[in-house]
Amino acid sequence: MSIARVTEISATSPESFDDAVKQGIERASETLRNVRGAWVKENKVNVENGKVTSYVVNLMVTFELES
Amino acid sequence: MSIARVTEISATSPESFDDAVKQGIERASETLRNVRGAWVKENKVNVENGKVTSYVVNLMVTFELES
Amino acid sequence: MSIARVTEISATSPESFDDAVKQGIERASETLRNVRGAWVKENKVNVENGKVTSYVVNLMVTFELES
Amino acid sequence: MSIARVTEISATSPESFDDAVKQGIERASETLRNVRGAWVKENKVNVENGKVTSYVVNLMVTFELES
Amino acid sequence: MSIARVTEISATSPESFDDAVKQGIERASETLRNVRGAWVKENKVNVENGKVTSYVVNLMVTFELES
Amino acid sequence: MSIARVTEISATSPESFDDAVKQGIERASETLRNVRGAWVKENKVNVENGKVTSYVVNLMVTFELES
Amino acid sequence: MSIARVTEISATSPESFDDAVKQGIERASETLRNVRGAWVKENKVNVENGKVTSYVVNLMVTFELES
Amino acid sequence: MSIARVTEISATSPESFDDAVKQGIERASETLRNVRGAWVKENKVNVENGKVTSYVVNLMVTFELES
Amino acid sequence: MSIARVTEISATSPESFDDAVKQGIERASETLRNVRGAWVKENKVNVENGKVTSYVVNLMVTFELES
Amino acid sequence: MSIARVTEISATSPESFDDAVKQGIERASETLRNVRGAWVKENKVNVENGKVTSYVVNLMVTFELES
Amino acid sequence: MSIARVTEISATSPESFDDAVKQGIERASETLRNVRGAWVKENKVNVENGKVTSYVVNLMVTFELES
Amino acid sequence: MSIARVTEISATSPESFDDAVKQGIERASETLRNVRGAWVKENKVNVENGKVTSYVVNLMVTFELES
Repeated sequence: MSIARVTEISATSPESFDDAVKQGIERASETLRNVRGAWVKENKVNVENGKVTSYVVNLMVTFELES
Repeated sequence: MSIARVTEISATSPESFDDAVKQGIERASETLRNVRGAWVKENKVNVENGKVTSYVVNLMVTFELES
Repeated sequence: MSIARVTEISATSPESFDDAVKQGIERASETLRNVRGAWVKENKVNVENGKVTSYVVNLMVTFELES
Repeated sequence: MSIARVTEISATSPESFDDAVKQGIERASETLRNVRGAWVKENKVNVENGKVTSYVVNLMVTFELES
Repeated sequence: MSIARVTEISATSPESFDDAVKQGIERASETLRNVRGAWVKENKVNVENGKVTSYVVNLMVTFELES
Repeated sequence: MSIARVTEISATSPESFDDAVKQGIERASETLRNVRGAWVKENKVNVENGKVTSYVVNLMVTFELES
Repeated sequence: MSIARVTEISATSPESFDDAVKQGIERASETLRNVRGAWVKENKVNVENGKVTSYVVNLMVTFELES
Repeated sequence: MSIARVTEISATSPESFDDAVKQGIERASETLRNVRGAWVKENKVNVENGKVTSYVVNLMVTFELES
Repeated sequence: MSIARVTEISATSPESFDDAVKQGIERASETLRNVRGAWVKENKVNVENGKVTSYVVNLMVTFELES
Repeated sequence: MSIARVTEISATSPESFDDAVKQGIERASETLRNVRGAWVKENKVNVENGKVTSYVVNLMVTFELES
Repeated sequence: MSIARVTEISATSPESFDDAVKQGIERASETLRNVRGAWVKENKVNVENGKVTSYVVNLMVTFELES
Repeated sequence: MSIARVTEISATSPESFDDAVKQGIERASETLRNVRGAWVKENKVNVENGKVTSYVVNLMVTFELES
């Protein structure tokens, strides 16, 4: 019998979507134990003066609860 | 690099949907810091004797985590 | 063992979405017994000369069947 | 044979969702002729210090093109 | 005025989907108070050598917050 | 030329999801003739004191109308 | 204040999807008064020996209730 | 590097859905250059006295912008 | 115990959507045995010089596997 | 670098949904190698004389391709 | 009171999805003022001789209208 | 008259999402002829010890069938 929890985080990076995903996972792993994976729910960008200033990903992060 | 969490709450009010949203945000802000906004996921009403007795909103609340 | 039915109604009001919901529930309760609640499926408005003339809500109304 | 166009607008009001809808329709009707109606695609709120500061609606506005 | 939270858990059982639901609710209730109900978001199975080895359900669990 | 109607029912059982489906179909067939089948739209459970107390299924039931 | 009901029918024709829609509306109008319109929810075909034998449309039919 | 825009139109014809698509594309091409294609988002019919009076299609029309 | 497979095909015709469906089923039946039916997943059109040049349907085709 | 394929099957059982899933996986594993798991896309039942005669599940089955 | 419009563009790049997003925003900002951000609706690739030849993103671009 | 098939593959890469797409297309093209393009259905990542270990994309790959 195993139980996991799924929580949604939103990570922002000035570099790229992939970087936002990596940073989001690393930050989440500081607070959550046994992070197993994540599903990308949404990708957005912020724009100023016609340029992309940041990449935003919403991730559904799965982490296992100890029995 | 900024990280936010998104959590789902369900708020009920006898007055109106707008009131349920306001109350839900205020109550969530008692426990969560840096609440930035919310997306209305679902609106429902409870009914007794042919009258609406309460308005229920499900909100996806975004709050920023300190680095 | 309990059984309920779910039926879709569309209610229109010149006042507001909340009013359209209330009226819709009251009218449905004239014909249906044991109305327990409703889920708001859709919100629309009709417009004439640049003004909102009516608010339209589509409700999924749940009512219990007697065994 | 009639043709209409559907365009998405996002309207913000400090008062309520209904007010944001009304204002959005009025502003859209300044630029677009023959606005017939709108479907509410999304409701969001912005929050500061635990209070709702503005109500945001995304509307799919239908307006008829002259033949 | 009542507020509830909705959290997503993923429960795995070697027996059946119904058993995974039961176990998931029981485990969640160890950590969360006032669990009222859950909506089944997703059903999956894991397979080895052509046999189902485990049933996995993702549940959206609703639990009431004390005022 | 054949015409069928589709109606949504919600059936509750203390036993299991499969039992809720069976009971829902049997009860619907008392009032509706020529029930051909049903699609499971939604599965929910009610919970008290950390235990599942009932299984709820929403079914889209198809029944044929006589010409 | 106007109220309408929305009901789902499934109509089958050996000719075409358009014909199935027409027939479905005509048959529904025999039992329901004030039918205003319908939204096509789903199109399917039945096949035998590599040939389409019938066209099936699921329609969400809106009809107005008298006050 | 190529950029296209996607706009939603709603076309109505008394004949058939296919005719409504054709007319919609022809009318859109009067105002928009380099129309490449369209995706059918929605099909509806209007009804009077139990008869289909018009076929309505919502099209997502893609047209290329000159660099 | 019966098992069927569902495969997605995309069929194009210069005539109409119905024709694209018929042709798609006939072509699929050359390679697949026991085709039972199909669900229309998507309708698109290709356009050149303001005219519809072809109708494209994506079909989810169900065919039964022999035990 | 690993590649998997996802294929949709529809499995029918007179017993229960869980049984239909088990049988579907076993039958698929006769033809497909390295089946890893499946996601339940849809649950339906067939009905005769007011009784459920069969349980139908549509499964998205994932199986690994050898490099 | 602020009003924004949301328009859909499709941008293609031979490099990567991120590049297609950047180029799409830059091109859109040539014609549209006050572009604030965009939501990635869809990612596709074109293929020739077994190689990816271009990355295509559909973006929902939000730009503010002056009052 | 042209017919294409659409099949779902899942490709994994330790590098990035774009790399997983490229590899997936190249591997699919070894077994399938006339691959024309693909639509990105889903992006996931696997995580170990707080680090992203692999990027997983689910692609709907379209390939043309010879008449």
